[in-house]
Amino acid sequence: MTTNRQILLAKRPTGWVTEADFRMVESPVPVPGDGQVLIRNHYLSLDPYMRGRMDDAPSYAENVKVGDVMVGGTVGEVVASKNPKFKPGAMVGGYAGWQDYGLSDGKALSRIDTSIAPASWYLGVLGMPGVTAWIGLLDICQPRAGETVVVSAASGAVGSVVGQLARIAGCRVVGIAGGPEKCGYCVNDLGFDACVDYKADGWRKALSAAAPKGIDVNFENVGGEVLDAVLSRTNAFARIALCGLVSQYNATEAYGVKNFRFLLINRIRLQGFIVSEYLDKWPRVLQELAGHVAAGRVKYRETVADGLENAPSAFIGMLRGLNFGKQVVKLV
Amino acid sequence: MTTNRQILLAKRPTGWVTEADFRMVESPVPVPGDGQVLIRNHYLSLDPYMRGRMDDAPSYAENVKVGDVMVGGTVGEVVASKNPKFKPGAMVGGYAGWQDYGLSDGKALSRIDTSIAPASWYLGVLGMPGVTAWIGLLDICQPRAGETVVVSAASGAVGSVVGQLARIAGCRVVGIAGGPEKCGYCVNDLGFDACVDYKADGWRKALSAAAPKGIDVNFENVGGEVLDAVLSRTNAFARIALCGLVSQYNATEAYGVKNFRFLLINRIRLQGFIVSEYLDKWPRVLQELAGHVAAGRVKYRETVADGLENAPSAFIGMLRGLNFGKQVVKLV
Repeated sequence: MTTNRQILLAKRPTGWVTEADFRMVESPVPVPGDGQVLIRNHYLSLDPYMRGRMDDAPSYAENVKVGDVMVGGTVGEVVASKNPKFKPGAMVGGYAGWQDYGLSDGKALSRIDTSIAPASWYLGVLGMPGVTAWIGLLDICQPRAGETVVVSAASGAVGSVVGQLARIAGCRVVGIAGGPEKCGYCVNDLGFDACVDYKADGWRKALSAAAPKGIDVNFENVGGEVLDAVLSRTNAFARIALCGLVSQYNATEAYGVKNFRFLLINRIRLQGFIVSEYLDKWPRVLQELAGHVAAGRVKYRETVADGLENAPSAFIGMLRGLNFGKQVVKLV
Repeated sequence: MTTNRQILLAKRPTGWVTEADFRMVESPVPVPGDGQVLIRNHYLSLDPYMRGRMDDAPSYAENVKVGDVMVGGTVGEVVASKNPKFKPGAMVGGYAGWQDYGLSDGKALSRIDTSIAPASWYLGVLGMPGVTAWIGLLDICQPRAGETVVVSAASGAVGSVVGQLARIAGCRVVGIAGGPEKCGYCVNDLGFDACVDYKADGWRKALSAAAPKGIDVNFENVGGEVLDAVLSRTNAFARIALCGLVSQYNATEAYGVKNFRFLLINRIRLQGFIVSEYLDKWPRVLQELAGHVAAGRVKYRETVADGLENAPSAFIGMLRGLNFGKQVVKLV
């Protein structure tokens, strides 16, 4: 292949993202200059944070400009190199974005070991989402054995790791996910103590029943009504790691959090965070996660879309919760 | 006087407190038993937290039962004592509640030194509100010189101390208060850099203008629309001490916080707190505050209601922001 297909941000979405917000273009495969590496991307990661990058609003990261290639984590194979640190044939992780090929100066590349896990897992449990789970749960919330941990988007790339790490820490683990299949997976495959289907009637009562001693730790990925329900069931001195608000990313009007007062009543500590600001901890965390994966203590599941051309629809589906586990796109 | 007048909680309020929610009764002045102290209360403190104690809803402290004497901090004189630690004539601070006389076993009593400041100040800048300001600002938010600190209910017992401590710490201090008189006091008397009148048209623009570099620290006493306006003007890594939500205490429907997402976007740390859970720090903090007061670095202002019978109306007025500075009731 001598053509590099790229998916650009065609226009900024209003409310829900549509496929018309993206545009595919073709250009020649670039040639690496001195110090550069050319990578054939094998997998593209799709993550909720990308929705924020499509907006104009200020956020914690620079927005994608209209006409630019969409940002995204990737794993792939070095196919040409003028950088002595990376030889052709090496498998690497990086941030090449939504395209078949990417150039890199090597600084943001990491070598990946496909003898431990499949390459795509380095976009999930052994990559950014896994580290996000670890930092938010263990570093920020510091759960103690016997405490009740609630995690929303529980079967997803981040939530599934949060719940399993909480289980390993000796906590009672309650997931919140959409649909009986995802909830069954959390309980039967991942070892959660309970999982509440927020699409089912009576889910608030089910949450109370699943956390009979109240909630000590909340790893928040969703926001909206789910967050309000969690807040009203918190215990004194609860900790909240605020990782995402995916229910809000496509909202044209912000949801008003009605149970904010519980942050006061229960003397809660809440910390918003973004994992890229904890870079010094990544190597140690990734090593620990690899150990859990190798020992079978942490399980992992993916939804794989096939082909770059299907990235936009897969991305939109993920924002609607249609994926099951980590959403990636297979590019080769 | 041989009669002890007491104000009881007559019924639980729905929405706004009314005077009918209280009832005054008379009973004989009690006689101290072994180890007990009888105190003639000179001043009663009125504080927003008392509104929560009138409700049935779970909160961080036990509710007042219907028919019980309303809780409250007091200063007064020991008039009879069977406790060797407190001699008649001694001035003490304690929690005798809304009544002319109180009995104590001495455990929750503190000696007060009226050579440093008037007795009533030990209900404010040299008491619970002062320590609240110190803990929330300096311990929880840890402001650095040059940062912008915003405090709501700025001219009140807590807010006025927060702003002055922030000024002493070298911060840019922005108050939020109701009306030009209170705002003028914050700027001209307390040395705030700016104060925004939330009752004036265009107050949100005024807040932006008063914090041109954004908000690094927020000491939150009010909640509601004021909090939403503050949240949207925060900087990355802002800290919020959540001390009170007085705009909500009489609300029958909770305000929905619309700018919650800024806690994520700006990786904010928010901590709800109650000063009685930091008892180990009180002696050191009170000593520091006494030093500031003695040196004239921290100023203080009171609104004094006259007579126990006027406590209910003064309390309701305080919840509406009619007081100016710390609200107390003079009992003798």
